[in-house]
Amino acid sequence: MSTAAEVLARCAQLDRFSASSDHLERVYLSPEHAQANAAAEEWMRLVGMRTWVDAAGNQYGRVEGREPGLPALLLGSHLDTVPDAGSFDGMLGVVMAIAVAERLRPHLPELPFALEVVGFSDEEGTRFGKALLGSCAASGQWDPAWWDLTDARGTTLRQAFADFGLDPDLVGDAARRPEELVGYLEAHIEQGPYLEAADVSLGYVTTIAGARRFVLRVLGEARHAGGTPYERRKDALQAAAAAITAIETIARSAGVIATVGQIEVQPGAVNVIAGRADFSLDLRAETDAARDEAWALIHEAVEAVCAVRGTTFSWIQTHEAPSMPCAAWLTEAVVAGIRATGDANPMGLWSRAGHDGMAVGAVTDIGMLFVRCHDGISHHPAEAVREVDVAAGLDALEAAVLQLAGSRV
Amino acid sequence: MSTAAEVLARCAQLDRFSASSDHLERVYLSPEHAQANAAAEEWMRLVGMRTWVDAAGNQYGRVEGREPGLPALLLGSHLDTVPDAGSFDGMLGVVMAIAVAERLRPHLPELPFALEVVGFSDEEGTRFGKALLGSCAASGQWDPAWWDLTDARGTTLRQAFADFGLDPDLVGDAARRPEELVGYLEAHIEQGPYLEAADVSLGYVTTIAGARRFVLRVLGEARHAGGTPYERRKDALQAAAAAITAIETIARSAGVIATVGQIEVQPGAVNVIAGRADFSLDLRAETDAARDEAWALIHEAVEAVCAVRGTTFSWIQTHEAPSMPCAAWLTEAVVAGIRATGDANPMGLWSRAGHDGMAVGAVTDIGMLFVRCHDGISHHPAEAVREVDVAAGLDALEAAVLQLAGSRV
Repeated sequence: MSTAAEVLARCAQLDRFSASSDHLERVYLSPEHAQANAAAEEWMRLVGMRTWVDAAGNQYGRVEGREPGLPALLLGSHLDTVPDAGSFDGMLGVVMAIAVAERLRPHLPELPFALEVVGFSDEEGTRFGKALLGSCAASGQWDPAWWDLTDARGTTLRQAFADFGLDPDLVGDAARRPEELVGYLEAHIEQGPYLEAADVSLGYVTTIAGARRFVLRVLGEARHAGGTPYERRKDALQAAAAAITAIETIARSAGVIATVGQIEVQPGAVNVIAGRADFSLDLRAETDAARDEAWALIHEAVEAVCAVRGTTFSWIQTHEAPSMPCAAWLTEAVVAGIRATGDANPMGLWSRAGHDGMAVGAVTDIGMLFVRCHDGISHHPAEAVREVDVAAGLDALEAAVLQLAGSRV
Repeated sequence: MSTAAEVLARCAQLDRFSASSDHLERVYLSPEHAQANAAAEEWMRLVGMRTWVDAAGNQYGRVEGREPGLPALLLGSHLDTVPDAGSFDGMLGVVMAIAVAERLRPHLPELPFALEVVGFSDEEGTRFGKALLGSCAASGQWDPAWWDLTDARGTTLRQAFADFGLDPDLVGDAARRPEELVGYLEAHIEQGPYLEAADVSLGYVTTIAGARRFVLRVLGEARHAGGTPYERRKDALQAAAAAITAIETIARSAGVIATVGQIEVQPGAVNVIAGRADFSLDLRAETDAARDEAWALIHEAVEAVCAVRGTTFSWIQTHEAPSMPCAAWLTEAVVAGIRATGDANPMGLWSRAGHDGMAVGAVTDIGMLFVRCHDGISHHPAEAVREVDVAAGLDALEAAVLQLAGSRV
């Protein structure tokens, strides 16, 4: 059970655990979550792992190294999905980790660390709107304010814990201590087109992007579309349109990623000038400094647009995550692993998407291996990886672990 | 009962007939509609008019001229309102018409036409989404397809007729024949700032704007906001923003009015590039040719934007109304009426807003008198007119009718 074909078959098996029969959706603390955990647990047991579900629903398996009780090198990713998901975002990394654990069985008596595999329970944040719930619990960063988050049906996170058979009062037990862990290595599909463009199977991650999200508000004046001449308009949507254009111009020039994916205008009538426009901004950059400099430029540009239009600009930040650099010593092992597959000059790239490592990095060093995916498509049923790339990924991840073992002898 | 102060008091009285106690909303075939009709009817009777409600709920009053049964000069406007309306849009014209009828009582034995006042029942289209229902019925333009229009509660127009005590099968009886009418004269607040900017009380209307409304659709590709580089994006909202900017630029340069008041993007997630953007376009111009030339330029510009962005453009037209010129002979009378108030050089302007005259023009000539309003505000509780301007309007409208009477002797 350690070939790429078998890995892909297991990813396909996980597709069955979905809230819907016609698309894949597997959210935190759902019946499908329990089913996916059980499948992963069975595969872990086949590898000889001791298994458990932690106090936040994360699925673990562990095999000891050259002596019992050593700190563990943690491999894994997440088992939850967005709505209408593909089969690989998260799941591929968990299944690959189990496959690598199997490949490493002959080496266990020499390993200077235990080997653990984790399937994090919530990375996407689909159900409760807050991402990384599983890895935040595992890294001791659970915020009690989250208990009152509700899903679309009004079920609180606290109630969902109880419904899943978890005790909310024990969530602290999920927290790993730094001394228990050597580091965290995650394989994940790239979710971008850079590896494909470079015609390589694998890449190493330098940093997980720093992100900030905002709601920007432009206040103008709702007036009759017929009777109000242009020179008297305070058109919030015209101001927003100019701001949205400026945002992309600034982001392109600054080498960051800025996306406006939501907009809502009020009153929203065909014959009334927009009095208010609210729009989102999702900002990502390789470093927090680059991200924050871009935001300063965007802020200035939107202020300038609003000044010209007689509208006013305000904003709230809805999310902020610092960039999470991958540790040099783990990255060296990932690079060595990729080299072992025959790629003499491995490609490094920063992850524009968020990952569990952003949370896990609070408790242990992290490293990440990206696997090429088709056309950068992710969060979509058309998500696709090639068997040859998964095979290379398995080889690289196994070699990386052995490299780490050797360096720690 | 013919001073400006009395006219304003009657407008205030009509405010009581509202669906809500805290704002003014009086829609077609509502209990408030019946109450406003009854109030107008009482005022008409005080002037000695014979009164009736026609088969579409329009309130009429009539006094004969120098002999019974002459074709009528029709004065009036509408009694329905938008939600959260001001007190003058429509109502002012009806109440002024009644006041002018009173002033003209001494002249009735000489008038070469009968005098009728109408309070149209639906100009705004608030309840059923289709404007000018009252004046369309009165001008023989009722479309049987409208019977299935529904209001927000699901009540059909047909049912609403019955609930109001009207027989849908008789709606054709509301249609006036051309030979019954001399022409139609309407006083209305400007709903724009041009008279105020010119520091004059009154203006004559040259034309009611030709209008077209569209829903424009940009189709792009919904993809992960993090992983998709700019050069691979087909961002529907970025394309829409550029289109919205272009629309205003074109309209300003072409001297027409184009407004985008609605926009909706899909999937509408903070971290997903917009795959689709739908936005409205409300286009008004003094002539149909100017309007259609502007649309051709806008169409071309949006096509160009979409070509650059890798998105596709499609559109549907949701409304089209030809411009309705005011008749020269009625406009001359209005101009003479304004001159009689001491304004030697009356200001002409085209109406950016729609009016009942757009429908009535199908059956008789129309003329319009605009009364200055504050800051161009309309469709809003802050709608305001000055007593001195109403006084000038009464004088002008009375003088216009006498001028018409003189010219037809």
